[in-house]
Amino acid sequence: MATWSKAPLIIAAIFLLSSAGVAHGRSRRFVSSHDEPCMEMRLYLHDILYDYSNSTSNSTSAAATKPTALATAVPSSGGTFFGEVVVFNDPMTEGKALPPSLEETEVRAQGLYLYNSKEAFNAWFAFSIVFNSTARRGTLNLMGADIIAEKTRDISVVGGTGDFFMARGVATLRTDTFEGFTYFRLQMDIKLYECYV
Amino acid sequence: MATWSKAPLIIAAIFLLSSAGVAHGRSRRFVSSHDEPCMEMRLYLHDILYDYSNSTSNSTSAAATKPTALATAVPSSGGTFFGEVVVFNDPMTEGKALPPSLEETEVRAQGLYLYNSKEAFNAWFAFSIVFNSTARRGTLNLMGADIIAEKTRDISVVGGTGDFFMARGVATLRTDTFEGFTYFRLQMDIKLYECYV
Amino acid sequence: MATWSKAPLIIAAIFLLSSAGVAHGRSRRFVSSHDEPCMEMRLYLHDILYDYSNSTSNSTSAAATKPTALATAVPSSGGTFFGEVVVFNDPMTEGKALPPSLEETEVRAQGLYLYNSKEAFNAWFAFSIVFNSTARRGTLNLMGADIIAEKTRDISVVGGTGDFFMARGVATLRTDTFEGFTYFRLQMDIKLYECYV
Repeated sequence: MATWSKAPLIIAAIFLLSSAGVAHGRSRRFVSSHDEPCMEMRLYLHDILYDYSNSTSNSTSAAATKPTALATAVPSSGGTFFGEVVVFNDPMTEGKALPPSLEETEVRAQGLYLYNSKEAFNAWFAFSIVFNSTARRGTLNLMGADIIAEKTRDISVVGGTGDFFMARGVATLRTDTFEGFTYFRLQMDIKLYECYV
Repeated sequence: MATWSKAPLIIAAIFLLSSAGVAHGRSRRFVSSHDEPCMEMRLYLHDILYDYSNSTSNSTSAAATKPTALATAVPSSGGTFFGEVVVFNDPMTEGKALPPSLEETEVRAQGLYLYNSKEAFNAWFAFSIVFNSTARRGTLNLMGADIIAEKTRDISVVGGTGDFFMARGVATLRTDTFEGFTYFRLQMDIKLYECYV
Repeated sequence: MATWSKAPLIIAAIFLLSSAGVAHGRSRRFVSSHDEPCMEMRLYLHDILYDYSNSTSNSTSAAATKPTALATAVPSSGGTFFGEVVVFNDPMTEGKALPPSLEETEVRAQGLYLYNSKEAFNAWFAFSIVFNSTARRGTLNLMGADIIAEKTRDISVVGGTGDFFMARGVATLRTDTFEGFTYFRLQMDIKLYECYV
């Protein structure tokens, strides 16, 4: 084993050469540092729900299914929406403010979330973040459990396209605000640990 | 840094040795070239929709939820189906023709798609491609935004099994034809950039 | 090519050094052996369905949508539930027995499955396994086709968080028992081939 004792250092050195000569055109190089993300950003997701009780013309998501009788049978008023599947197309912003127009924005989150607990609010997400600006173009694809009871929770970035070609990483979610069942804002700290640059 | 200046070339050379000695049995080797896919194929997905207005006995997909009132409220006739979730089990072919039998085929796409826009047709997919022939056996798992307004759009291949063990890559979608709301054909160019061979 | 002939052996040796010096703190190292999983475990998923015909107070999953008329039109009694989407939050155990309390357990599977065939029972899964014990904390995210007609079927582990940071692998499913439509137990053999340790 002695002859290979420096191998991890070598491979680490190769992987960490992220600042050295980014290839041009279609040529890409794998960058993977597990101490330091190769890319990170903070985004806020704004969700304005259109459901069976509330409805606003500026809603960005829609309940595709009603909560089950199981959920509404929960004594607490309103229940925990167990079984409700929500389809969304939400604007995302760099700061906390809603964009001037909910339709027009450079970053949108598109996909579904669902409520999956009888006892408490608990959600699960699968969606894409679609970037469409001169600075960033492409998508990130994410999925994971949004255990609302915990202050922060991690979901996986499982793939990417365009400027985020083949990316992988972790996104940390935090409920930034929650106004009844009509609006919530989710802080999303995205850290990519595998990039092709 | 000088001593490591050739490292990216070395690692690239190692990763590009995809044609050299594919290991036998359970032994597999990681192949990753970011200029050249380690595997690529073009497939066509055929979707014949069974929904609340149309229904055919040879349908391959089914609307699991109705579009929301929000979607049908859109002035354009028929709306944009915002909130409709569709479960599918669609045959895929190498050429554009439908297979002789919709039930029997060597490649099938199984999963869900949903419509997520109030303004235009816009979809989101999560599904598996199931290969079941003597030539190819296994699955590829994909997810991503299908932004129908764009001529081509990329989604992620996030994993694979069997002959596609641990694969990752990108699939480029193009609407090849769209006949009302009863049939659409999607061209799917799949390029894998990480393979275990 | 001769000068690179030993390259695959070198890279293999580097990747296989999984037992050498696990880094402390936030520093992580990429481990990838394709012959030997870097982590493996067997878990059992217990699903007690609340649907439109059966309902039990100890149910752990809920049908979010009814099966389509397409599915119920199948001659066999009960049909194949084509189009039914189920939201679940199921306890998982190391052995086959159900946990003493369905609400309290250290491992839970959260997400959705759906039935997608007119001819036979066939399912598709996307979910997270949430670990919450002193031994293991974090999540694994999985998706794939559950082709029930086959004795075992493989789905992908597409990402992980916490103790399973950035993990990838394959999970092999086997129906361990199936009691009508009220309870099923799924054996899940999880093998991770990419770990950051």
